[in-house]
Amino acid sequence: MRTIEWNTNHNSIVLIDQRALPGRLAYLECFTAEELIEAIRNMAIRGAPALGVAGAFGLALKATAINKNHDWLQQLVIFSELLIFARPTAVNLGWGVTRMLEIAKNNGNNPIEGTRLLLKEALLMAEEDVQINRRLAENGANLINDGDVLIHHCNTGALAGVDWGTALGAIRFAHESGKRVKVLIDETRPRLQGSRLTAWECEQYGIPYEIITDNAAGYFLQRGEVNAVFFGADRVAANGDVVNKIGTYMLSLAANANRVPVYCVFPVSTIDLKVKTGKNIEIEERDQVEVLGLSFEGERVAPDTAKARNPAFDMTPHDLITAWVTENGVVFSPFSSNFEHNVYNLKQEGK
Amino acid sequence: MRTIEWNTNHNSIVLIDQRALPGRLAYLECFTAEELIEAIRNMAIRGAPALGVAGAFGLALKATAINKNHDWLQQLVIFSELLIFARPTAVNLGWGVTRMLEIAKNNGNNPIEGTRLLLKEALLMAEEDVQINRRLAENGANLINDGDVLIHHCNTGALAGVDWGTALGAIRFAHESGKRVKVLIDETRPRLQGSRLTAWECEQYGIPYEIITDNAAGYFLQRGEVNAVFFGADRVAANGDVVNKIGTYMLSLAANANRVPVYCVFPVSTIDLKVKTGKNIEIEERDQVEVLGLSFEGERVAPDTAKARNPAFDMTPHDLITAWVTENGVVFSPFSSNFEHNVYNLKQEGK
Repeated sequence: MRTIEWNTNHNSIVLIDQRALPGRLAYLECFTAEELIEAIRNMAIRGAPALGVAGAFGLALKATAINKNHDWLQQLVIFSELLIFARPTAVNLGWGVTRMLEIAKNNGNNPIEGTRLLLKEALLMAEEDVQINRRLAENGANLINDGDVLIHHCNTGALAGVDWGTALGAIRFAHESGKRVKVLIDETRPRLQGSRLTAWECEQYGIPYEIITDNAAGYFLQRGEVNAVFFGADRVAANGDVVNKIGTYMLSLAANANRVPVYCVFPVSTIDLKVKTGKNIEIEERDQVEVLGLSFEGERVAPDTAKARNPAFDMTPHDLITAWVTENGVVFSPFSSNFEHNVYNLKQEGK
Repeated sequence: MRTIEWNTNHNSIVLIDQRALPGRLAYLECFTAEELIEAIRNMAIRGAPALGVAGAFGLALKATAINKNHDWLQQLVIFSELLIFARPTAVNLGWGVTRMLEIAKNNGNNPIEGTRLLLKEALLMAEEDVQINRRLAENGANLINDGDVLIHHCNTGALAGVDWGTALGAIRFAHESGKRVKVLIDETRPRLQGSRLTAWECEQYGIPYEIITDNAAGYFLQRGEVNAVFFGADRVAANGDVVNKIGTYMLSLAANANRVPVYCVFPVSTIDLKVKTGKNIEIEERDQVEVLGLSFEGERVAPDTAKARNPAFDMTPHDLITAWVTENGVVFSPFSSNFEHNVYNLKQEGK
């Protein structure tokens, strides 16, 4: 089973409900495009590549539901905005939706045929996602040596894509190539995708791991126990700045302070050339309950009246990143003035 | 009620059981010195200054129990080692115990009189702790400006001492002096002393606060929303390196990267001149359950078979610290070659 699939019998989207892991492997079936939006918002599905495909399937599902309507294209355009707004920081979602919307626009006066083409494109994108992520995983695996200990942030494995994912895909590729690796998994507060999802995935693959609190990464880096740091990206600016899960920035600072390489792994579709630097990227702030809802040994932790701030992402400036790993190859730092050109080339080749 | 007190009716030690907060304000009464060791180990009481006084009361309680024994002194020496071993990284515990042991050694052949003097000394140390911490809180408050937003790590308030505490004491002093401050409280995984204890204390004092995940500190620092970072210390080396709650190092790196001052607040008794640098300080690694025992919305987070690493402290090199705040004044960075001399002077004056 893949993380997200189209069910041709029901004309529905079936996805692994990531909120139930690691306790249960549960599936969520979205019969309407609005249910998919809710699943994206509540993070039943998350992860940059997975969101790209989810966006595509979402548009296909909406198109299917309204393919008798004369305002088919207009409704799709409105729905696209709602869909993208469900996770405003993640560029892949917008990328997937925009790619689909082009096809819709070219078939606006033939909704039946347009819907058929949209579904075909979404299925193609799901297939592409697997191939692209396998390629970038292989590229990332080349940066990993036998015996390495790696810190990994958030979840970037198969669950974050249709399969393979990004940074964890690279670690998995290295492991399956026979390299002995150990992963120190950042638990990744507040939603704990590390201790929930990445630990679960490592169990499936047989990759040795230990969970650490996010704030302990510096301890292990300072003591020379770590060979490299790996994470994915939710949006990469034209200058190489990376917006990724909250905590990536502090992890990157700690790695740099201890001369440990920092590898950011993502498909080219995560690059957003429209934003010059990471400073211009809107950061989603999520519900306080994600911070305050924690309990320990059965008791709620924070005072009942407590308030919290909950930014979901942060921005890691390009000078903290050693290499950007994509399906088209690896771009190493330090940046030359033509880094943007390199990225642009990667993007063109990737199409 | 103070965090820790001697009960003269029972000849016992009464302390606030910090594990029950913020849900309940519960007290734990230790009738034997061995019960106190357990309370220190399971962190019913914690915090550098509080541990110093706890060590003193512990020795007084042990002396009381065995003051008919001819091997009184010998038993006290053995007990002292067990007591210090309960939290090996925290220097104040050893400091309190050692100060008491001097008195015991001078009265080894008169256990009744020795016990009386030990209790007197422990009560004096508890009083001194309040006065010292109030002084260092005042010194720290001078570094805070009206309108400041401060990030605070772990718990360093009244609960971490007999009263006042250290870094949070400084913030409280500023607040009570009429300065408007807001605290972004690091939740401080794994034991969440921030969201449990510091949030609870801020509620008592009426200090505005918001809880953030530890890994979000960098986000707020990078955006220029923070005026200073405050934390305490569990042990300060002769060169100014600070061993403190896990996460302090990454927080300090993030503050430095954004030119935000880093203030470390502690009584002079936290300085350990015997260790030249922080690299030589043993870091306590605690039980995995502190990392893995987390649940969210009622469900355990990590896979059942997961393993974790759980260092309780990390080391922040002196060059990341802007100023060391003690009861005897503030030492500013950059260090001159006579920094050690300064610290030594502080220590001598402090006696």
